[in-house]
Amino acid sequence: MSEAIDINVAARKLAKVDNVLILCHKNPDGDTLGSAGALYWALHSLGKKAAVFCSDPIHERYQYMELEQFYDQFEPQYVVAVDIAGTQLFGERSAKWADKVDMCIDHHGSNTGFADQMLLDATAAATCEIMYTLIVTMGVEVTGRMADCLYTGVSTDTGCFKFANTTASTHRVAARLIDLGANLQMLNELLFENKSKERIAVEQLALSTLEYHFEGCCALICLTRDQIAKIGADEADLEGITSLPRSIDGVLVGITMRQQPGGSYKISVRTKVGLNATEIVRGLGGGGHAQAAGCEIFGGLDYAKAAILAEAGKALEGRIPPRQPEKQPAGERQDHAPEG
Amino acid sequence: MSEAIDINVAARKLAKVDNVLILCHKNPDGDTLGSAGALYWALHSLGKKAAVFCSDPIHERYQYMELEQFYDQFEPQYVVAVDIAGTQLFGERSAKWADKVDMCIDHHGSNTGFADQMLLDATAAATCEIMYTLIVTMGVEVTGRMADCLYTGVSTDTGCFKFANTTASTHRVAARLIDLGANLQMLNELLFENKSKERIAVEQLALSTLEYHFEGCCALICLTRDQIAKIGADEADLEGITSLPRSIDGVLVGITMRQQPGGSYKISVRTKVGLNATEIVRGLGGGGHAQAAGCEIFGGLDYAKAAILAEAGKALEGRIPPRQPEKQPAGERQDHAPEG
Repeated sequence: MSEAIDINVAARKLAKVDNVLILCHKNPDGDTLGSAGALYWALHSLGKKAAVFCSDPIHERYQYMELEQFYDQFEPQYVVAVDIAGTQLFGERSAKWADKVDMCIDHHGSNTGFADQMLLDATAAATCEIMYTLIVTMGVEVTGRMADCLYTGVSTDTGCFKFANTTASTHRVAARLIDLGANLQMLNELLFENKSKERIAVEQLALSTLEYHFEGCCALICLTRDQIAKIGADEADLEGITSLPRSIDGVLVGITMRQQPGGSYKISVRTKVGLNATEIVRGLGGGGHAQAAGCEIFGGLDYAKAAILAEAGKALEGRIPPRQPEKQPAGERQDHAPEG
Repeated sequence: MSEAIDINVAARKLAKVDNVLILCHKNPDGDTLGSAGALYWALHSLGKKAAVFCSDPIHERYQYMELEQFYDQFEPQYVVAVDIAGTQLFGERSAKWADKVDMCIDHHGSNTGFADQMLLDATAAATCEIMYTLIVTMGVEVTGRMADCLYTGVSTDTGCFKFANTTASTHRVAARLIDLGANLQMLNELLFENKSKERIAVEQLALSTLEYHFEGCCALICLTRDQIAKIGADEADLEGITSLPRSIDGVLVGITMRQQPGGSYKISVRTKVGLNATEIVRGLGGGGHAQAAGCEIFGGLDYAKAAILAEAGKALEGRIPPRQPEKQPAGERQDHAPEG
């Protein structure tokens, strides 16, 4: 079992050690890489040897972190895991370190406590939020490059300050990082403006299949295996596409159908607050949360679609508004404001 | 000419007046409405009469501000304009007040100074950023509803903290507003998650016309008048669609062609940093900024497309990378990290 430590203990410990191996979780994201990068540069600024290792390749968009990758250039004397909630997240090439972690720095309340010591703050929106305070506590002067790394984690783990985990503290850390020289323009372009050509093709495909049902209260998209293969999209390109149908004004139930290897359809249901997604899939053997649930339907596309729409229709009973008049072009629109 | 005043003078002035008419700019956005709403509730909490007027209808998504709209329920003794940079932005139904504005509160450096007194801070990302400090300076306790109004302006005018105008101060104000009870979950869903059905149809159309040129360094979309009319899209639904082509990985020049009433094509060119958009349109009689420029080309679609692509090709000379190998499916990808 792990010993829980606070930020002062962690800072004192890191000040003492050398030859530090910093481990990221597999399928590395902005928060695990940003945390590793900031810690790497902080240790480097104290004259220590350190390097970063990740089981999976690091996307080229994170090049600006200038991470020194570990390739046995020193014998690790101290192993730190950042943003890793459990040993199953190490990945094949890091697995040998999983029972040798001296300190884990993390913000996942679900952390399994695999490290000797653990600096955990489940109220932090990102591990980078903790890392910022840790580096300051270590007495390290935060450079522009460290600020870039830390801003990366804080902004990506909160969907650029939009997700429910965003707190006042997240914004305060972001403000400090901007003061310290984080290159906002570069980071926002790299992290939020750009989409891969495959992602764009997935959105194109999804929108081309968009159907409205129940007077626009339900939107449905459908992706087949052939279509996804033709695009060459991987899971990262498909991430979050299930939130597209619900994001449309007036849509209370968003449905995404995705063909599976056996020919069945995996159904993702997303609902607006006030409508329970789990209740929609329960009759079809599915489950989930209040606003996000899923099920799998065996049978052809038409059968699967009819089955899920029947359930959606039941859930929408009494919620479907009367037919709206056509939207009028700007300039001829009726004015709802009282006359002045 | 307007007298420039600071926040203390503005706060003292507002503490003295009553029966205040607060004016928003036409086509009202989150910042002009949020500023007006916060000021309305601040004056209300001081026991004053106030009301908000806007020449155009207010979108129902802003209902939570619970603005009291002006319908001659009192004789205005003091007129405040918020987020209005010039009298051309009043709109038809507000025009009669344009030369009677006692105070303008704004963040546009281009403000024409039409008001008697002007509280202007061009470094603020949003007028709501100024309004927050003003309300605190007035000695008003900021309520959750005021915080909702102010967060609306700060977040929408910065594209949720992504645009280049975002500063450390913007994040600090956001942090304070969250402390004061801004309902982040509701606001993020209303302001950033939802898109109109017409906007979705515009994106569907734009993506269905997407073409890549010059080895993917240039992306082009094209919208005709018939297509836009069929969707029933207004200017708000089309806003920002010109940034779509440039947002794709590897695209250095994004081009949007939009058919005009006379049959000509309006061309919007957006470039990544390092490539000058204005140089691309100069030969076609256009102009603009380094990363955003435009021109109009008379002639048919094929002619217009060939003309702008020829200019884009010239600008991209020496920038087009050699043909990339096809993307490999996940799992078979080559590992670029050094072996551990």
